Amino acid sequence: MKTSNNKNADIIFPKGVTISNTNFTGIAWLQMLVTNQDTFDCMIGNVTFEPGVRNSWHSHPGGQILLCTSGVGYYQEKGKAIQLLEKGDVIEIAPNIVHWHGATPNSEFTHIAISTKTNLGPAVWLESVTDEEYNSYKE
Amino acid sequence: MKTSNNKNADIIFPKGVTISNTNFTGIAWLQMLVTNQDTFDCMIGNVTFEPGVRNSWHSHPGGQILLCTSGVGYYQEKGKAIQLLEKGDVIEIAPNIVHWHGATPNSEFTHIAISTKTNLGPAVWLESVTDEEYNSYKE
Repeated sequence: MKTSNNKNADIIFPKGVTISNTNFTGIAWLQMLVTNQDTFDCMIGNVTFEPGVRNSWHSHPGGQILLCTSGVGYYQEKGKAIQLLEKGDVIEIAPNIVHWHGATPNSEFTHIAISTKTNLGPAVWLESVTDEEYNSYKE
Repeated sequence: MKTSNNKNADIIFPKGVTISNTNFTGIAWLQMLVTNQDTFDCMIGNVTFEPGVRNSWHSHPGGQILLCTSGVGYYQEKGKAIQLLEKGDVIEIAPNIVHWHGATPNSEFTHIAISTKTNLGPAVWLESVTDEEYNSYKE
């Protein structure tokens, strides 16, 4: 099955629709890329964060892989330092690892998010990322 | 875990290494993007076909998803017409569907290939795509 087609030279996939829930601190966009989650035991979405926007601490029972495609973002696992994310970076998030991701303060950020083994259940959402945590990135 | 980082503005992921097997008609490149296949039950590779290069008819016991990122390619399922693939197209290949993919005669083509439910086994490779089949695309 073929879906989506984007002729704009600057981006690969459409931005999609705004995500309207309390797990994001501001405007983020989601374009779902796979329609048949049950067949593939996998969910794929193109996610774009506006500058400064991040999601809450959370984990995935079946894990998740992030393929970074444009802009500059942050990724942090509980108890570790923030990592800077740029185009071409790949993040492997093992099952049940508590983490968050988002844009840096001054750049939009887009990644493809591949949630794997989705039959194990949906993401588990936890507390918000504090400003102190978000601002703790060190070059 | 963070892997790979690519500063070239024209591409997202590195081309990787050439694929040297008889399932491809010419030069194709593979950059593996996920190291821990067992954890995610999923294998992800960035595949680039030189113009005119395609793979053989094959199928995946656990299915595969193609995210097209640059150039122009072809995709065909057994018994159906060839589909043209461009940046932003997504192809969902259900388990055991016999198909092939590759570049068009005059364009390089790159897609991210996500093989799902890989615990069900590796790809099953079949006969080559004939020139008559490859040249059967109609606009």
